[in-house]
Amino acid sequence: MAQGTYVEASFERDTNYIEDRITVAGDGEHEWPVEAGRYRLVVARACPWANRAIIVRRLLGLEDVLSMGICGPTHDSDSWTFDLDPGGVDPVLGIPRIKDAYEKRFPGYPRGITVPCVVDVPTGEVVTNGFAQLTLDLSTQWREHHRDGAPDLYPEALREEMDELMRFVYTEVNNGVYRCGFAGTQEAYDAAYERLWVALDRLEERLADRRYLMGESITEADVRLFTTLARFDAVYHGHFKCNRQKLTEMPVLWAYARDLFQTPGFGDTTDFVHVKSHYYEVHRDINPTGVVPAGPDLSGWAEPHGREDLGGRPFGDGTPPGPPPEGERVPTAHNPHVGPDGLVRV
Amino acid sequence: MAQGTYVEASFERDTNYIEDRITVAGDGEHEWPVEAGRYRLVVARACPWANRAIIVRRLLGLEDVLSMGICGPTHDSDSWTFDLDPGGVDPVLGIPRIKDAYEKRFPGYPRGITVPCVVDVPTGEVVTNGFAQLTLDLSTQWREHHRDGAPDLYPEALREEMDELMRFVYTEVNNGVYRCGFAGTQEAYDAAYERLWVALDRLEERLADRRYLMGESITEADVRLFTTLARFDAVYHGHFKCNRQKLTEMPVLWAYARDLFQTPGFGDTTDFVHVKSHYYEVHRDINPTGVVPAGPDLSGWAEPHGREDLGGRPFGDGTPPGPPPEGERVPTAHNPHVGPDGLVRV
Repeated sequence: MAQGTYVEASFERDTNYIEDRITVAGDGEHEWPVEAGRYRLVVARACPWANRAIIVRRLLGLEDVLSMGICGPTHDSDSWTFDLDPGGVDPVLGIPRIKDAYEKRFPGYPRGITVPCVVDVPTGEVVTNGFAQLTLDLSTQWREHHRDGAPDLYPEALREEMDELMRFVYTEVNNGVYRCGFAGTQEAYDAAYERLWVALDRLEERLADRRYLMGESITEADVRLFTTLARFDAVYHGHFKCNRQKLTEMPVLWAYARDLFQTPGFGDTTDFVHVKSHYYEVHRDINPTGVVPAGPDLSGWAEPHGREDLGGRPFGDGTPPGPPPEGERVPTAHNPHVGPDGLVRV
Repeated sequence: MAQGTYVEASFERDTNYIEDRITVAGDGEHEWPVEAGRYRLVVARACPWANRAIIVRRLLGLEDVLSMGICGPTHDSDSWTFDLDPGGVDPVLGIPRIKDAYEKRFPGYPRGITVPCVVDVPTGEVVTNGFAQLTLDLSTQWREHHRDGAPDLYPEALREEMDELMRFVYTEVNNGVYRCGFAGTQEAYDAAYERLWVALDRLEERLADRRYLMGESITEADVRLFTTLARFDAVYHGHFKCNRQKLTEMPVLWAYARDLFQTPGFGDTTDFVHVKSHYYEVHRDINPTGVVPAGPDLSGWAEPHGREDLGGRPFGDGTPPGPPPEGERVPTAHNPHVGPDGLVRV
């Protein structure tokens, strides 16, 4: 994702998305049918909203049925590009910019060109960039394609509480850090900062005696919180001025984040180089030189977290995913804790 | 101080100062005679180089013989002003801007208008802004005016080692953080960051088994290191991208800095509000919005440091200074650890 504006000095996210869905029913108008091999998920590892989709796809084992195109970390006003691919062109979609797939669907598309999005490979058209529904549909609509042992990331019995909690995580944390960083006035910033830390303190408390946000097993709520925590010290603390403390100074959240980081699917999809490069190089309005900080020291991510003492079964009745496919591994140089097998070394 | 330029992308401090001195001999040309009540030290609490002079003057008890004018934390291209004073005019010098005292001495003065500087009150002319020599002269030339129990901050027997160490602290740390923050290219920044952390690691090691930089008692070397450490998490870590770790994550340096902070003369001269306001509001080239971060949480500064276990006699054969004069106290709102008596609460 990469869109938003200053509205009366406060950051307001542009929430106009292409809200089509891919569903079992696939009604043919705003719902497209689930079909192995038909769609391509387009992401950027830098982006927290895309990272969410990367993690969910991997936890559910959808790699073979839903391929993935990866944009580079930086972009200009034409948005994300496939600059990491040979010739700067996505090998499946055959386009250099994800904008091309938006234009294919809607010529002159006027809204935000964002990742994650899903492209219909036969037509080259974007199906959806509704990031919030997208991952839930991977859990609920793609079930017949899940790997053996895939966890239930959106359990029916928990949905009511979970939806409320995820709304809170979205407005107060995922988007809360942007509200701090893109505040155009001191007043807007001060209010955003206050609001963010109220939320983080509340989560620190919630997680003190439960291993995961919804209890004993990982759910999509954890995925959503993780992607912000993984970026916290690397970009939000300094670049977005979310600096009451570092994540490393919030004992419960830091242990919780490490626990997830060390779980297959989380740390091994985190690319710190892309993350820092994106925020510091693209947001010239708040970092005019484009210089990317060399810190922070990341060694702590592999330290023991002690959260096993809280019990829990990370994958419920399921199992952890195996290593990521070779073409989708984060380079060790971009995450010192990712080994040659693509897994996080602890 | 507030001068420097990007020279071939790397920050180079403008080191052309008015190098006159105030000495016992006072030869009348480039040396002015020590004289109680004749001069006014002009500072800004925000500025680390000025903070150094504030601390030394206070440790030596020179408040009654060398008065002090305090500039506000922010300034425009005409440099520091007396905006904190009633009517925006220094009550002793009768001028609104310290630039006026530079112009009085040298009409059309072309170089940096910096604090700290010393002004000759009768003529209203700047005597010196040579910040490095200034504090050493307070120790060595103003000795007859020191308070009873003033420490020896520049002991003869230690000077050779101390001069070398202070040069290291200056080039690698005091100025090293600026070299990171004002780097105009990634290459210049990366080199500056590397160099800074080599130095901080070396100091972390040096201070592991000695209470102060020169051994068992506080010297000017400690004053010089302290003023950078006191600003580290508040500004240098985020604003200047000195972010391998926070000071709070360097166990030895953090305990050392707390030890000094809790010593009369150090924490009670530290104004965190002025510090943050200055850096974030003045440097619009690296912080275009001018928004000042609300963090970091400062509560840690009052925590026990445990450095007494290393022994040492903070003031040698001398004693700590009493509270600062009423008109020179840092408001509690600007430093939560300063009490109504002007001293740091621990």
